[in-house]
Amino acid sequence: MKALVYHGPGAKAWEDVALPELATDSDAIVRVDTTTICGTDLHILKGDVPAMVDGRIIGHEAVGTVTQVGAAVRTTAVGDRVLVSCVSACGACRFCRDRRYGQCNDGGWILGNEIDGTQAEYVRVPFADNSTYPVPEGVSDEQLLMLADILPTGYEVGVLNGNVQPGDVVVVVGAGPIGLSAISGARLFSPSLIVAIDRLPGRLDAAKQFGADVLVNNAEQDPIAAVRDLTGGLGADVAIEAVGVPATFELAVELVRPAGRVANIGVHGRPVTLHLERLWSRDLTITTGLVDTSSTSTLLRLLAAGRVDAARFVTHRFGLDDIIRAYDTFSDAGQTGALKVVLSRV
Amino acid sequence: MKALVYHGPGAKAWEDVALPELATDSDAIVRVDTTTICGTDLHILKGDVPAMVDGRIIGHEAVGTVTQVGAAVRTTAVGDRVLVSCVSACGACRFCRDRRYGQCNDGGWILGNEIDGTQAEYVRVPFADNSTYPVPEGVSDEQLLMLADILPTGYEVGVLNGNVQPGDVVVVVGAGPIGLSAISGARLFSPSLIVAIDRLPGRLDAAKQFGADVLVNNAEQDPIAAVRDLTGGLGADVAIEAVGVPATFELAVELVRPAGRVANIGVHGRPVTLHLERLWSRDLTITTGLVDTSSTSTLLRLLAAGRVDAARFVTHRFGLDDIIRAYDTFSDAGQTGALKVVLSRV
Amino acid sequence: MKALVYHGPGAKAWEDVALPELATDSDAIVRVDTTTICGTDLHILKGDVPAMVDGRIIGHEAVGTVTQVGAAVRTTAVGDRVLVSCVSACGACRFCRDRRYGQCNDGGWILGNEIDGTQAEYVRVPFADNSTYPVPEGVSDEQLLMLADILPTGYEVGVLNGNVQPGDVVVVVGAGPIGLSAISGARLFSPSLIVAIDRLPGRLDAAKQFGADVLVNNAEQDPIAAVRDLTGGLGADVAIEAVGVPATFELAVELVRPAGRVANIGVHGRPVTLHLERLWSRDLTITTGLVDTSSTSTLLRLLAAGRVDAARFVTHRFGLDDIIRAYDTFSDAGQTGALKVVLSRV
Amino acid sequence: MKALVYHGPGAKAWEDVALPELATDSDAIVRVDTTTICGTDLHILKGDVPAMVDGRIIGHEAVGTVTQVGAAVRTTAVGDRVLVSCVSACGACRFCRDRRYGQCNDGGWILGNEIDGTQAEYVRVPFADNSTYPVPEGVSDEQLLMLADILPTGYEVGVLNGNVQPGDVVVVVGAGPIGLSAISGARLFSPSLIVAIDRLPGRLDAAKQFGADVLVNNAEQDPIAAVRDLTGGLGADVAIEAVGVPATFELAVELVRPAGRVANIGVHGRPVTLHLERLWSRDLTITTGLVDTSSTSTLLRLLAAGRVDAARFVTHRFGLDDIIRAYDTFSDAGQTGALKVVLSRV
Repeated sequence: MKALVYHGPGAKAWEDVALPELATDSDAIVRVDTTTICGTDLHILKGDVPAMVDGRIIGHEAVGTVTQVGAAVRTTAVGDRVLVSCVSACGACRFCRDRRYGQCNDGGWILGNEIDGTQAEYVRVPFADNSTYPVPEGVSDEQLLMLADILPTGYEVGVLNGNVQPGDVVVVVGAGPIGLSAISGARLFSPSLIVAIDRLPGRLDAAKQFGADVLVNNAEQDPIAAVRDLTGGLGADVAIEAVGVPATFELAVELVRPAGRVANIGVHGRPVTLHLERLWSRDLTITTGLVDTSSTSTLLRLLAAGRVDAARFVTHRFGLDDIIRAYDTFSDAGQTGALKVVLSRV
Repeated sequence: MKALVYHGPGAKAWEDVALPELATDSDAIVRVDTTTICGTDLHILKGDVPAMVDGRIIGHEAVGTVTQVGAAVRTTAVGDRVLVSCVSACGACRFCRDRRYGQCNDGGWILGNEIDGTQAEYVRVPFADNSTYPVPEGVSDEQLLMLADILPTGYEVGVLNGNVQPGDVVVVVGAGPIGLSAISGARLFSPSLIVAIDRLPGRLDAAKQFGADVLVNNAEQDPIAAVRDLTGGLGADVAIEAVGVPATFELAVELVRPAGRVANIGVHGRPVTLHLERLWSRDLTITTGLVDTSSTSTLLRLLAAGRVDAARFVTHRFGLDDIIRAYDTFSDAGQTGALKVVLSRV
Repeated sequence: MKALVYHGPGAKAWEDVALPELATDSDAIVRVDTTTICGTDLHILKGDVPAMVDGRIIGHEAVGTVTQVGAAVRTTAVGDRVLVSCVSACGACRFCRDRRYGQCNDGGWILGNEIDGTQAEYVRVPFADNSTYPVPEGVSDEQLLMLADILPTGYEVGVLNGNVQPGDVVVVVGAGPIGLSAISGARLFSPSLIVAIDRLPGRLDAAKQFGADVLVNNAEQDPIAAVRDLTGGLGADVAIEAVGVPATFELAVELVRPAGRVANIGVHGRPVTLHLERLWSRDLTITTGLVDTSSTSTLLRLLAAGRVDAARFVTHRFGLDDIIRAYDTFSDAGQTGALKVVLSRV
Repeated sequence: MKALVYHGPGAKAWEDVALPELATDSDAIVRVDTTTICGTDLHILKGDVPAMVDGRIIGHEAVGTVTQVGAAVRTTAVGDRVLVSCVSACGACRFCRDRRYGQCNDGGWILGNEIDGTQAEYVRVPFADNSTYPVPEGVSDEQLLMLADILPTGYEVGVLNGNVQPGDVVVVVGAGPIGLSAISGARLFSPSLIVAIDRLPGRLDAAKQFGADVLVNNAEQDPIAAVRDLTGGLGADVAIEAVGVPATFELAVELVRPAGRVANIGVHGRPVTLHLERLWSRDLTITTGLVDTSSTSTLLRLLAAGRVDAARFVTHRFGLDDIIRAYDTFSDAGQTGALKVVLSRV
């Protein structure tokens, strides 16, 4: 079959590889019908993800059709159309029992990282019972695909960790795909105001589409002053960091009121400074997190009910064979306006 | 009357001042029967607390007898023996309605900070209905006094913010009075293990008295290795920071497992570094906080029931007139072994 | 002034009474600009509310203008336009400190019950700091008035007690004003489905307007079968009882899935049967409750932000002098279709 | 092998049966080293448990040694000493993902109910990865055995559902083995007072041993008056029902304060009356539940740390072959004082 193989920093190729095979009784083999590219995949291609080795297939998001299941797989069967979650969960370790599937001792985010991934014609999915989801009727592959990673990430690591509540003022710092996902997820709890902060006008436009009420371009405007004005000087209830650099994290911390919450989603490469000399008495809660996909079932119900607009993320579509061009489009998002690019089996 | 008056950094005097008077209808005047000295008072005397001005009376902890009440005071009366809480709460602002009394718009920690305090023969207590507590029978003044600040601080900012649960491994970094208070509070939730970390053998001895199961002297032993050994390599469930310098905060963060909680109690004077390049995916929760005294009623019930050992904090006793010597003893805790010094009306 | 005075079961009169006066320092006198009639007022007129005595003024909902304040009142001033909450809260007792204002030792629902109420030209409001709310700009009196009782009741006692979460299937049994309020509040948490059950087609129409997704007329259709069909046989996540008779409570209990929640709002006059012989193992949570108005600030923010549609409740408008006719209209809701009738100062 | 086989109401026999075999890849076969008898087993023998059929082996608690594992079992191996939980959990269904293992679609309490149980020389344990627990060092089989059912039942269904908090007044209605387990679990949260209510002096003695502070014999004393006296007229914070008849449930409801919680553990055979005509406004929370064994890992840590005294439950010991006599002793607890009887492989 064909697959996108990582060959060290900067090098990738759409090439022939062996078909995946069942490795344990709890695996499934899934034919990939649609897959997509994540910001993390770009990190991988820069060489930033240490577990990734030369020769491994990239990708951790897919919707597909089950072609083979191990003897112990109970909840999915050959022929089933399934969502392949970015997180594989053993279901039995301490972390899985605490619904912290992202921290699973033998799973977690391993697809396209510690094992071969989904940017291929077929993929082996470990712990299939806890890592694939049957697809509800009336939902398209494209919509579903947004539940493999991006929607649960924004919802769990941003919205639930930030404990967004009705009436809150929520600031999302960074309006890339993950920030937009946080905006989309925050709306489910009816905040009184969602403020999006970014430096790119195109991203702020997108934030408006996804439901932000106020747009602050921090290249032009002081975001701290803006949020103070909007909140009678108090500060936001929740700030969600969706960029991953020190300046945006430190901004998020400044934006919240006493007893506010800061939920970090951003993938950081450097340490940040926490001004405890001011913050020690401010009753802050700061969270970090990897997606657990513990919300996938909930989001599937919301998607089926039309409460979540997943399709809006999809800006570009390609055939699976055209994946190199899809990467070019996705990695040049500033120019192309790409949010999520969908790759489909032709 | 006599009172301990602040006269700028390093300067204090036990001198004659005017008796306090009711300023609003919701005030009470309380005759101070016992008071104590807090680590924060030492900060004040170093000049570190900006709201404190020359001429103001120090102190924010007392047990006393009500001598006068404003017309709007409903829950306490002249002659009542009351606990004076370190936090004054208006009871009506947004923060008070959220039980965040420490952040009260018109109150909070104002005694001995923004207004005259308790190290005096009499003190004016604002918002008396929400800032004093009737004293249960069978409890001594000394025990009660520990509920003015230290016990609720360790319990709320350390134990409740850290969400200590039965079976947890809890590490308390710093075994000074606040750390001991956190140990004492943590025991109420039956952790499986409480680990105390300090560099002073005397403090570790005290930690053992208060209920720590394992003592780690981090002048001699690597605390990270010690906690890993105790937890099968995983890390602690909760780390409580009770020192207030960058090294101990950063240590606390290193000590917890994925999905662990770090509760900062320490009063910090400098920024700290947060290694988000490692921590972004670790599902951490970090909290900061000022005491709210929202737990005072609960702690009073526990004290009356004999479930909290408050008396153990009291290492030295003085007459109120002897307060200068009491400060000497308290500020030289390394030599004197002082935890809390009690000053009583003679 | 004129006021609606209760004169024993079945008897009420719009008559001259003395102007209210400040009784304590924490009282305010409010000129009533708009008031409304509650289902509970009808109970009162049937003689069902034991604290109500001959000669007392009815009513516990108002928006008005402060005309006088006691010396201890801090947060509101003469001339302020305020919402008068149905609950008066002392702010200091154990229940108030737990945000259970409805159970306040000296307050709770006392207006138009234990003391004179709001269906009058002026009303004395006890504990004014904790019982009135400043009015946000851009919100009409009519909208605000819905926050005096009905909206917080549906939200707190139905939605929050029922712990409605995104993606849930929520059933509201009874689509009268309180049921509609619960539907309105439930939508703030983005359930996947809201099912309204009632016997009156007009009420089901209203439920649809307020956001119900599925309407079940239980005079014509088996509601248990209907909910099973909608949930793949599982049952609802949450059932909210908004009628107050045994049959509807028992229905609500039958409708939820294992580990489901039943939130009772209905005012009951008779005991109900709980089938513990089937339910003991079903992981149910059943709650009852009186409104605390702990959510009033949140709802005010949501109202100001346009996230709550309060105006939709108002079906009829009268001058205050026309209150007897307003009662006729409201108590004949089956014919008039009345939800909330607004009475305004002319 | 030998096993205790159910032969219809009133009939059981210790007889020869075939050895169990692996039925699916996720099963384990465990040699039973110790087992015990549960109150539910007596219900079974009365014919009260409809799923139980003639010919099935009774029992759902065991500590044993793994003798065989299916190909998909990952976390336990032949030769391991394990706790066999009363609940078998698939780990993948909606309920398991919500940690409601007791409601598992394909598991739950099935041992000795829907499939052969543990009162035998060997038992087949389904879903072994999620239904057995490795045994910590330094803990005896007898202690462990108490974690198969009784300790998690009291802790989860009584203490956690009742949301026992430090300082609470907790009343446990019924001081049989399950009530004692609730007392034992409640102590982990440091209530200020635990009140035990029973009619048998011997049980009240046992309650004292397990940590009850106040004993009320409701054959001699009005328990409602007693609890009022202890709480200044307010009522208890939490009442835990551990009997299973209408009178004790209705008593539990009467005993709690406004905003109190009632946690039902009792297995009921008849409906109860809920006085909503008084309770609708009382802010009650009532819960029911089947044990999920979601707390087993926590309790294992507490047991290993010496924080839970499991051994105290064991009043009688028998060889496995002597099981008929053990049933006689257990079912005549009023005379024998039996709490838990332990049956061990000789």
